[in-house]
Amino acid sequence: MSTIALLTDFSLHDEFVGVMKGVILSITPNATIIDLCHEIPPQSILQGALMLQRSYRFFPKGTIFCCVVDPGVGTQRNPIAARAADWYFVGPDNGLFSPVFQEIAGTKQQLEVFNLDQPNYWMKEISKSFHGRDIFAPVAAHLSKGVKITELGRKTATFVKMDLPEYRKTQNGWEGSIINIDHFGNCSSNLPSEVLKENPSPRLLIKQHLIDKFVNTFGEAQPGEVIIMADSSGYLSICMVDGNAQKTLDLHFGDKVELMKS
Amino acid sequence: MSTIALLTDFSLHDEFVGVMKGVILSITPNATIIDLCHEIPPQSILQGALMLQRSYRFFPKGTIFCCVVDPGVGTQRNPIAARAADWYFVGPDNGLFSPVFQEIAGTKQQLEVFNLDQPNYWMKEISKSFHGRDIFAPVAAHLSKGVKITELGRKTATFVKMDLPEYRKTQNGWEGSIINIDHFGNCSSNLPSEVLKENPSPRLLIKQHLIDKFVNTFGEAQPGEVIIMADSSGYLSICMVDGNAQKTLDLHFGDKVELMKS
Amino acid sequence: MSTIALLTDFSLHDEFVGVMKGVILSITPNATIIDLCHEIPPQSILQGALMLQRSYRFFPKGTIFCCVVDPGVGTQRNPIAARAADWYFVGPDNGLFSPVFQEIAGTKQQLEVFNLDQPNYWMKEISKSFHGRDIFAPVAAHLSKGVKITELGRKTATFVKMDLPEYRKTQNGWEGSIINIDHFGNCSSNLPSEVLKENPSPRLLIKQHLIDKFVNTFGEAQPGEVIIMADSSGYLSICMVDGNAQKTLDLHFGDKVELMKS
Repeated sequence: MSTIALLTDFSLHDEFVGVMKGVILSITPNATIIDLCHEIPPQSILQGALMLQRSYRFFPKGTIFCCVVDPGVGTQRNPIAARAADWYFVGPDNGLFSPVFQEIAGTKQQLEVFNLDQPNYWMKEISKSFHGRDIFAPVAAHLSKGVKITELGRKTATFVKMDLPEYRKTQNGWEGSIINIDHFGNCSSNLPSEVLKENPSPRLLIKQHLIDKFVNTFGEAQPGEVIIMADSSGYLSICMVDGNAQKTLDLHFGDKVELMKS
Repeated sequence: MSTIALLTDFSLHDEFVGVMKGVILSITPNATIIDLCHEIPPQSILQGALMLQRSYRFFPKGTIFCCVVDPGVGTQRNPIAARAADWYFVGPDNGLFSPVFQEIAGTKQQLEVFNLDQPNYWMKEISKSFHGRDIFAPVAAHLSKGVKITELGRKTATFVKMDLPEYRKTQNGWEGSIINIDHFGNCSSNLPSEVLKENPSPRLLIKQHLIDKFVNTFGEAQPGEVIIMADSSGYLSICMVDGNAQKTLDLHFGDKVELMKS
Repeated sequence: MSTIALLTDFSLHDEFVGVMKGVILSITPNATIIDLCHEIPPQSILQGALMLQRSYRFFPKGTIFCCVVDPGVGTQRNPIAARAADWYFVGPDNGLFSPVFQEIAGTKQQLEVFNLDQPNYWMKEISKSFHGRDIFAPVAAHLSKGVKITELGRKTATFVKMDLPEYRKTQNGWEGSIINIDHFGNCSSNLPSEVLKENPSPRLLIKQHLIDKFVNTFGEAQPGEVIIMADSSGYLSICMVDGNAQKTLDLHFGDKVELMKS
């Protein structure tokens, strides 16, 4: 009985997440269901994809990630299930899984993607707007119960790829962008902290703000100071000690970041 | 060991929901506890009742719904438990359960309601303001553990009924109201989508807004367009593609909706 | 297999809580994990400590509380685990646990605190900013799995104590402060309701507001009335019937409260 982890943009404001769990337990009463997160900004496939990529490796082998950020629900986009390395993934084929799939394929681990086409594993009636309840939750539940992924759909050689924000070396250092802002207002870039190795005392420019305090822990700076440190995923992050860097500096997802030699 | 599903207006801001779970597990350590939703607007029995009615059928048979939207806590209102068709319900008798009870009674399925009066199945001390912890969670836990519902209270022939927002046929079409607004800003009316059968290309009037784009899926309209489509419960809903209809049109729970022949 | 209860200031906005659960299930797949609360205001050790103190007694014996409000993460503060009366506690030694520890020690029940120093029970790589994932979740999981607390660290005789807001008798009555504001806007003071025994019809002064309506239940007052009643933890609380006292009176954590003879 595998763990099922849910990732959506549904928030907890409505019954949607609870109903998905009801559907899962109706099929497999002993499933362990975990909320990965439900606060992906509405329709933000990219942010859901990045969160999944940061998170999946911390879950038990065999975990089934049932992920629904699905602005194209009811249209031609394919519902898919996949086995990728030690995990399973179920949801819409709209790029949500592509960073994980490409990362796993890039390390020569197993990746098999299936277009879901067996409605006998779905709810009897399929709505036009809630495939999380009608298709993805039931499929995840059947997988957890032991149905083979090959019975759920037809293997496909392709899947939708998403363009990820890239970082690049410049004449004067590195350029990247903000790819995550957490509840504390910490703003993570896509610059891996390894770039500091070749430039140990740099300055970072974001909007008009020049930041030159690089620390290893919050404790090395004073309350209210804006600092750069490696986040828990290994990326350079702009933080304020005991404060909120996002609000203080008015930073946003996608803002450009420049790391410059000092 | 039945699933216990929790529905409250407590939000997750405080320890209330966590403490109810602690109480349940203290009585029945292997219970499966699911959050249906905790974001019912404070004291909004009607909105809780409507959400429960939309949701219960998706849960496993035997599920115990422990529901607490309870502005009358500590007063004369009765605590009740009920067996209704394949499910159990525990909470205050203030109308919260009446749409479900009436729906089930209307289809001639089993409905038995009990006034809870056996304090040996409650916490030892009963506060005046948190019967979710002191009465309803323990009763749900004992039910889940196998205590018979007939041991928990005395059967009653009546329960508090709630007036539900009604829709009606008019000279020119149908009239209803907004009965749910979800996290995405989709505004569902109480007009079932079947009313379109007799009037396939109507216009919908809400406040000063006239909407005439009826679609089956979000994909049939452009980003930013306001549309009408059937929601996942089968009711006509006002939505904005990749946007928030509630905010854009300033709609609210209870707003009147008119569906007119074109 | 003990229940693991999580208390953090992470909110549910990010993947942090989900990832902690993934880590726990990777170590002990059958663990029961309960969210006590994740909405402690960022870095507010005091508010986390007070919530834990209000809540722990409602959880099953053997429950492992894994608590992370940790502004000093990555610095010298010790990671600890403790056995206190019938429960276990895992988290940073920064005062978060001290009200519980002192309460339990004060009643002569067992209290043993251990400095965590056995990295073989942690994640392999320890980040500088997310010990919830890297140290505390794994330690809680190993405890749940049956590892003895004595294997996880070295016993210590001391722990960080937190100054709690105190209340005191005055010439004219009692003086305390607001120590909790819930989702409904109810503002709880640290004055135990027993102080009413010696002064059954007092007035309460908070900011410029004088409140003299003391009731046992919400039902004894009219909608919109501001009242004082005992909260579900036994403290005097300022509430508005069917309304929000916090917003209406603009009250805040820490505001001074005076209970005066009338």
